[in-house]
Amino acid sequence: MKNKLAVVALGGNALLRGDQIGTIDEQEENTMLTLENLIFLINEGYNLVITHGNGPQVGNILMRNDAGEQMYNIAQMPVDICVADSQGGIGYMIERMFRNVLNRHGINKNVICIVTQVVVDGNDKAFSDPQKRIGKIYTKDEADRMHEKKGWQFREEVKVEGGFRRVVPSPVPVDIMNIPIIRDLAMQGNIVIAAGGGGVPVYFDEKKDVRPAEVVIDKDLASSLLASMIGADEFYILTDVPYIYINYKKPDEEIKEFLNYEDTLKYLNEGHFAKGSMAPKIEACLNFIKNGGKMSVITEAFKLADKKYGSKITMEYEK
Amino acid sequence: MKNKLAVVALGGNALLRGDQIGTIDEQEENTMLTLENLIFLINEGYNLVITHGNGPQVGNILMRNDAGEQMYNIAQMPVDICVADSQGGIGYMIERMFRNVLNRHGINKNVICIVTQVVVDGNDKAFSDPQKRIGKIYTKDEADRMHEKKGWQFREEVKVEGGFRRVVPSPVPVDIMNIPIIRDLAMQGNIVIAAGGGGVPVYFDEKKDVRPAEVVIDKDLASSLLASMIGADEFYILTDVPYIYINYKKPDEEIKEFLNYEDTLKYLNEGHFAKGSMAPKIEACLNFIKNGGKMSVITEAFKLADKKYGSKITMEYEK
Repeated sequence: MKNKLAVVALGGNALLRGDQIGTIDEQEENTMLTLENLIFLINEGYNLVITHGNGPQVGNILMRNDAGEQMYNIAQMPVDICVADSQGGIGYMIERMFRNVLNRHGINKNVICIVTQVVVDGNDKAFSDPQKRIGKIYTKDEADRMHEKKGWQFREEVKVEGGFRRVVPSPVPVDIMNIPIIRDLAMQGNIVIAAGGGGVPVYFDEKKDVRPAEVVIDKDLASSLLASMIGADEFYILTDVPYIYINYKKPDEEIKEFLNYEDTLKYLNEGHFAKGSMAPKIEACLNFIKNGGKMSVITEAFKLADKKYGSKITMEYEK
Repeated sequence: MKNKLAVVALGGNALLRGDQIGTIDEQEENTMLTLENLIFLINEGYNLVITHGNGPQVGNILMRNDAGEQMYNIAQMPVDICVADSQGGIGYMIERMFRNVLNRHGINKNVICIVTQVVVDGNDKAFSDPQKRIGKIYTKDEADRMHEKKGWQFREEVKVEGGFRRVVPSPVPVDIMNIPIIRDLAMQGNIVIAAGGGGVPVYFDEKKDVRPAEVVIDKDLASSLLASMIGADEFYILTDVPYIYINYKKPDEEIKEFLNYEDTLKYLNEGHFAKGSMAPKIEACLNFIKNGGKMSVITEAFKLADKKYGSKITMEYEK
């Protein structure tokens, strides 16, 4: 029997919790606890591709770039390089911790991390309306200076009066490099780590050269595209809530454990899911189902181990 | 006929020249010019694995970590994570530039970058005598504070009076993760980028867990080990001199274009090659030959394209 293939997207608190400062010890411990829960899928015979977020880590890398330029006049790297750096650091950490989790369970499986470029359309409409806030909070003067020096665009910060943050476009992912290799390695039984942080953002110019894109790609949309392109059977988003809710945090809040495509799309369009948080996750799950995937799951990592994992979206309602 | 397999180690000025400040534009242009020279090997039918140095880049990452902690109190990452970051950033850049060079030559080949852990022996004698200088120059007071806070070890800097630099061990590489995958991908015709910066340094503890090593592995020794382990036919080190010299920069300086194992080992033992610079390159080349490799080459990148590439070391003298 052919093993099932699943893509598991580790997000947010899977690697680093909001109340932590981000030392490597904290990141390693969180990662270990998260990966421990994936043993269940491995024991069920799944082949796995792991994707991951990079929010806090690339945020720190951007801040260090700013500090390095100010203190030591070290040239700042563009966003694509910062994302690639974060894929190296986080991917290595996940690979190493996964090897140790497997070792402790006596499971003989290999783990490999691929630095992954994700392609956007150079004409994506997001380029004319940058919305994604990245890096440090600048004063008006600093922001003006950086705009002049580097062409960066800024928006006023809502949480900090007088604060400005750099904004970059967040175009949708349209292609991913090295898909056949990622699929083959996973189908051979390797645990493959790929497309971290939404992927290193690139686009093709008119000469078919690959050019860096100064953008951030939503990691859930990139993970969903990866899952569709490698022909995964199931797509898991591990986040900080155990279920999908409608009327979330309202008196008539309702857990949705089993959902079908149509109802979920209706809930999305009705605005049940927070923009920039749950909404892109739902969209990613729906894309996967629309492209032929069998099941999308949104839940917390530990829900996998208790085998009653969170909210499951399928094309037709299935219990 | 089976294609030949070569490992090409890009070092020093292949990515960034000493007189440059290290903007991404400079790095991309240098990388492009270097890779252009590898087209000759591809047209000759070689399968390629590319390794690379990370000296200036990881130096900048370490400095940014220092600055980020001082200015924004962002937790510093350990050396293994910094090396992994540099593998992501540099590896992605090489992959992207290589795709563009291939595109311009109308060559249909794929490029892939693997984040690579390189294993050292936890009991390597280098651990008791850290020699490799990394990161910024500290004052005595700063160095004392960092020693107390993080346990870092320091040595007085020779070039800057009153300056101290952090030193870490540089143990020899003994194993490399994911060798079968790197070999298979290369033999299938993919250009594989691996083991950048000497590899992300790790060791196995008594429970067989993989642990991070706060060390720097010599990139030429790691590249040579990789070449031997994947069964490469030839091993190229691209550096900033076109040939191996004896009596270098002396009146009786002599270019050595064809060398055999025994003579080269003799020259090494006679001290003809600078420590920390040419000596480890020669050692890496000799290791490759000793382990069954057919030919090691040391030269400048552009010498490949003119087909009269630099100095060639073989077991028996061959012209």
